[in-house]
Amino acid sequence: MKIGLLGFGVVGRGVYDITSELDNMQVAKVVCLEDVSLPDAEVTRDIQSVLDDPTIDTVVEAMGGVGAAYKFVRAAIEAGKNIVTSNKALVCSFYDELLPLAQSKGVQFRCTAAVGGGIGWLSELERSRRVQPIMQVGGIMNGTCNYILDSMTRLGLGYDEALKQAQSLGYAEAKPATDVEGIDTWHKVILSSNIAFGVSLDTTTVPVAGISAITAEDVAAFNARGYICKLISTGKRKDGKYSAYVQPTLVKPGQPEAAVPSNYNLITLVGKYSGRMSFFGQGAGRYPTAYNVVQDCADVIAGKGFYCEYGPKVAAVNDDKMTYYVRGDRDAWLSEHTADTWGEAVITKPVSVSDMHAWLKTHPGAFIAALSDDAL
Amino acid sequence: MKIGLLGFGVVGRGVYDITSELDNMQVAKVVCLEDVSLPDAEVTRDIQSVLDDPTIDTVVEAMGGVGAAYKFVRAAIEAGKNIVTSNKALVCSFYDELLPLAQSKGVQFRCTAAVGGGIGWLSELERSRRVQPIMQVGGIMNGTCNYILDSMTRLGLGYDEALKQAQSLGYAEAKPATDVEGIDTWHKVILSSNIAFGVSLDTTTVPVAGISAITAEDVAAFNARGYICKLISTGKRKDGKYSAYVQPTLVKPGQPEAAVPSNYNLITLVGKYSGRMSFFGQGAGRYPTAYNVVQDCADVIAGKGFYCEYGPKVAAVNDDKMTYYVRGDRDAWLSEHTADTWGEAVITKPVSVSDMHAWLKTHPGAFIAALSDDAL
Repeated sequence: MKIGLLGFGVVGRGVYDITSELDNMQVAKVVCLEDVSLPDAEVTRDIQSVLDDPTIDTVVEAMGGVGAAYKFVRAAIEAGKNIVTSNKALVCSFYDELLPLAQSKGVQFRCTAAVGGGIGWLSELERSRRVQPIMQVGGIMNGTCNYILDSMTRLGLGYDEALKQAQSLGYAEAKPATDVEGIDTWHKVILSSNIAFGVSLDTTTVPVAGISAITAEDVAAFNARGYICKLISTGKRKDGKYSAYVQPTLVKPGQPEAAVPSNYNLITLVGKYSGRMSFFGQGAGRYPTAYNVVQDCADVIAGKGFYCEYGPKVAAVNDDKMTYYVRGDRDAWLSEHTADTWGEAVITKPVSVSDMHAWLKTHPGAFIAALSDDAL
Repeated sequence: MKIGLLGFGVVGRGVYDITSELDNMQVAKVVCLEDVSLPDAEVTRDIQSVLDDPTIDTVVEAMGGVGAAYKFVRAAIEAGKNIVTSNKALVCSFYDELLPLAQSKGVQFRCTAAVGGGIGWLSELERSRRVQPIMQVGGIMNGTCNYILDSMTRLGLGYDEALKQAQSLGYAEAKPATDVEGIDTWHKVILSSNIAFGVSLDTTTVPVAGISAITAEDVAAFNARGYICKLISTGKRKDGKYSAYVQPTLVKPGQPEAAVPSNYNLITLVGKYSGRMSFFGQGAGRYPTAYNVVQDCADVIAGKGFYCEYGPKVAAVNDDKMTYYVRGDRDAWLSEHTADTWGEAVITKPVSVSDMHAWLKTHPGAFIAALSDDAL
């Protein structure tokens, strides 16, 4: 396999390094805007020279973003190149368009590293659904949030302090909203649910609650009662209906989610026959992410095509009832649904996920966390 | 794919059920000694009728044991059938012989369910080593031991009581020695190491310590000091040398191994680029195990051959130094290597794995557990 590599940042450089040790694939050209010189690959600023090179069969997109990346990936498919990308925003936004295009051009399209970084999650999911219906997907899909929550839980740090530490270690970006508001996790659970269930979830029906409002006092209250807070995503199918949501969730120490340290991820599927299977690993980082990009290249070589097209558009119906920890304005609705108090906060009676998230939307400073005896 | 199924017990019945929902494979004949009648498969006592049936391309061996199973599998390969088996004893004993035979006959041989039951561990390992060197494998590979240790830890049961409960739930056999003495785990880590590192470990150099000597007092001592005892296997490669062993190991609550409940398994690889990846799931049981048998069938259909041949014979060199909890006769060696005492037991100074296991061999009633800050 001869690879045209778009981008030479964190992931691109990792792909270059790993493939340089393999016999069956080689980065032939790198498109990047900086001055880089490489011993065994041509560096160019001109994407067209990749598209026009008939010896390049596969384009690895490691630029990020959805503007130029979308344009280049589309052009590469049109030019008959296989595509491997770790770009979750691109895949979530244009999957419906890019996948049929790839199929019509007879090229492969793979994006395993888009969810779970170093965990081969989407490949596993695709593999699993060959032989059984998938009933549920989800878990801890964002290393930034896990790092912040883990530091707050184990070290007693405040939110700002934990975020700063995550930023200084490169685990969180300068503008962390996409991660800490749960948007990154939301993208991932929608993509995972669509692949698992063969549907196209109406994204406006999938609610998300993030972690940015959590305080050291919240965490102290959880610790005192033997709970650990994690940001957990859920996608479920039952009786032909679907539900999907992202929310902080309180788990017990014996649950696998509770023992996910630092910036690791733990992603789970529940299959009709396999039961629960979970995958633990580095959710991000140069080499773990590049590892799955290279795995996708190996699968392209093996002729393994990628995911099913999205199926029919469906709305998520989030009528599961749960009890929630809620710290925020005790208005009439919340008072009516209060079962207990934990200091400043309340524990609700069982309320539906959709009702709880609807309330949160009108109380943006509040913090909610679902109590769960089974985290997924 | 038309399947000839050998055996109709726990796993065989599961394979029949799962395949009956799939379009691309079908159990055509079942060889079993009981009177069973099936709507859409012929039941026979005559293996020869499977071997002679040219429409049957794949034989699934679900008999167990190494006597008849070995004979039938060999004959099926000779007859040009692909083999899928979950029979770990068979694979461990005859891999060196059966795999080259399968290759010479141009048929596939797959055995994913032999390690990890419902976890696609060997498939993952094989997949991972396509693109990176594997540095380490291991983990919790035996659901029976994990169930017993988990019950003792969480419920304060004694060993006999926990074993009895495991037996009544079908998690332990009437004669549990293979599980509780660690032999099952030992088979699995040797097979995993051989596939991970491309070697053939000299099995006489791989020591194993089981859990049958553990007492409620041991567990109480661990609990009091914030440790949880798990039976953990390790296979490592470093600087061209290999080490491998199985032993009870004390982990801390934050480690992923600590949060493996009931009869679940957690199996881990550490790759040069992926870092640590762990796989959690049902290590046994009808449908989880049958699930991976069926996955192997799907891979055979996809033309995916199985594992590398064993490489050169190598001896494990277990010179890693660890501290151990040891309850047993305080002879001269143990006294000399004692750093601390926990009630009746001692905590050793750092001693090599091989020295500790050599001592245990001469003190068969003793119980040892390694203290680990990183379980694998």
